[in-house]
Amino acid sequence: MSTNPRETASLPSRINPVERLASLVGDDLAAVDTVIHSRMISEVALIPQLGQHLVDSGGKRLRPLITLAAARQYGYAGQAHLKLAAAVEFIHTATLLHDDVVDESALRRGRPAANVLWGNKPSILVGDFLFSRAFQLMVETGMPSVLAVLANASAIIAEGEVLQLRSAKNLATTEGDYLKVITAKTAALFAAAAEAGAMTAGASHAHTDALRDYGRNLGIAFQLVDDALDYSGRQAVMGKSVGDDFREAKVTLPVILSLQRASEEERRFWRKTIEVGVQEEGDLTRAIEYLERGGALGETIERARSYAQAAQDALSLCPDSEIKAALTDIVEFVVERAY
Amino acid sequence: MSTNPRETASLPSRINPVERLASLVGDDLAAVDTVIHSRMISEVALIPQLGQHLVDSGGKRLRPLITLAAARQYGYAGQAHLKLAAAVEFIHTATLLHDDVVDESALRRGRPAANVLWGNKPSILVGDFLFSRAFQLMVETGMPSVLAVLANASAIIAEGEVLQLRSAKNLATTEGDYLKVITAKTAALFAAAAEAGAMTAGASHAHTDALRDYGRNLGIAFQLVDDALDYSGRQAVMGKSVGDDFREAKVTLPVILSLQRASEEERRFWRKTIEVGVQEEGDLTRAIEYLERGGALGETIERARSYAQAAQDALSLCPDSEIKAALTDIVEFVVERAY
Repeated sequence: MSTNPRETASLPSRINPVERLASLVGDDLAAVDTVIHSRMISEVALIPQLGQHLVDSGGKRLRPLITLAAARQYGYAGQAHLKLAAAVEFIHTATLLHDDVVDESALRRGRPAANVLWGNKPSILVGDFLFSRAFQLMVETGMPSVLAVLANASAIIAEGEVLQLRSAKNLATTEGDYLKVITAKTAALFAAAAEAGAMTAGASHAHTDALRDYGRNLGIAFQLVDDALDYSGRQAVMGKSVGDDFREAKVTLPVILSLQRASEEERRFWRKTIEVGVQEEGDLTRAIEYLERGGALGETIERARSYAQAAQDALSLCPDSEIKAALTDIVEFVVERAY
Repeated sequence: MSTNPRETASLPSRINPVERLASLVGDDLAAVDTVIHSRMISEVALIPQLGQHLVDSGGKRLRPLITLAAARQYGYAGQAHLKLAAAVEFIHTATLLHDDVVDESALRRGRPAANVLWGNKPSILVGDFLFSRAFQLMVETGMPSVLAVLANASAIIAEGEVLQLRSAKNLATTEGDYLKVITAKTAALFAAAAEAGAMTAGASHAHTDALRDYGRNLGIAFQLVDDALDYSGRQAVMGKSVGDDFREAKVTLPVILSLQRASEEERRFWRKTIEVGVQEEGDLTRAIEYLERGGALGETIERARSYAQAAQDALSLCPDSEIKAALTDIVEFVVERAY
């Protein structure tokens, strides 16, 4: 069963909830795209070229969409959420640019990564530019408390990225270490995107907290599924190279779980490929076999399921609405990518 | 004649104006250092380690000092300028970290650069962290208009850094191109540091504009002198490797001016070393000879002198004070590094 958005969109029985949510926020997502494009303009031609490449390469705009939806859920009728949503996407894009340099990635969203096309230097510096633009957009909204939420998230993301360096090639990485990393590097922006949207609409503390919890749990589930998919051989779904984490010797949850029940032979394999960093032909296939056979991939998805449940539970406080229903279904959709 | 701060400080006839200004702002600079150290704390150990290395490696704190002085010049009695000054230093430090990765620098302020000690990945990511911290500090001051000034400066700096990539190995770079780059990558932060200080104190538009002009012109003069010193063989003064710009094939003003009156032999030399990028033993010495003989270094300093004059003129609006006198003398001091 395919979960590719473009294919499922035509099935009336199962409309892609991301697209459903996009239609529920009306013209907002198109307006955010306009902000994104207009604020990437610079007389320094390399900036729009490189920015455009990333922004146009078919990202789902999931994070800004959550900001828009959270604002609408609480009846926001102003315009500030558009700039905030664009800022969220800029922070995300800047992080991707720097990530791809750090990880020496070859592909991003199914296209050659910016660092491959333009080199590392422009990727680092255009990332800095987009990050600055994000703050300019946030400042323009004139909402200091919302700005604080996103500034805090940015610091947490960077902290998570630094922390992640320590788990590379390090088989002593625990499930707790791993959770700390993904909560910071991935879930913090989902959490801030949701919280910022609700804050913009003036929702009460209880409700902004609920939206933050929704975003955080959704983000953790999202990353867990991503890390399982990295070993599942389904490049078409991911738009990334399969086995990236393996090649970069990242110790993600599937590997951590597999090690817990590994035979001596398997243990030697992980030490050679991840700790020593010697990878030969056939090793990725063997890694996938070990992870599938031992149930580590399935168990990773099980973990994702429980965070997904927590994300849905967090929404129980929200008044029922079509937006709430779509936000709930998106959680399901994120986990279903794994099947 | 030495212009090393530590040596001149003991000469009563000529007290280092940076140290004089530091004493005029009382305990403010020490308080900023406390903010800097307390906000570099992170449970991710690599962050304070790497941050400390840079912050402790003897930077002059010139930019935050200007923020503090501008606030004091207009009678500010609050505490917000301390966080702003720390934010200015964090933005500067983050930029240095990313610069050193992009330029593949070996030395920074006379010590091994962070990218040499820890590698590029931590330098990129800790730079992002410090940048985020800067925004957190600014948000905490609760001064949106000041925040806007610094957010705009950050975007301009990043734009200037990207623009600079285009002039690498490019002998067609004009003096205008070069000025655009240094105005953005260096002068924008000096300008914002001065303007933000005056704004914090509630100075009028005319006065905040004057301080911004002071900072911008000072910053341009500063960079011109830096670029001349890069070819002057005085590593001790700079705390950087001599000939860095040459090795990185950066087309700075000395080279641009030299080319304007170059003989065919000289032109061939620059094409080989900068455009083609073939540098042999003795080439740096030869480059320095060409630049000195043709007067390009002297002329670069002359340009710096006129921007220095503009910086001093910009202060004419300010009421006379010891701080104003020290700000004026700092301009002189920056240019005198070249002699």
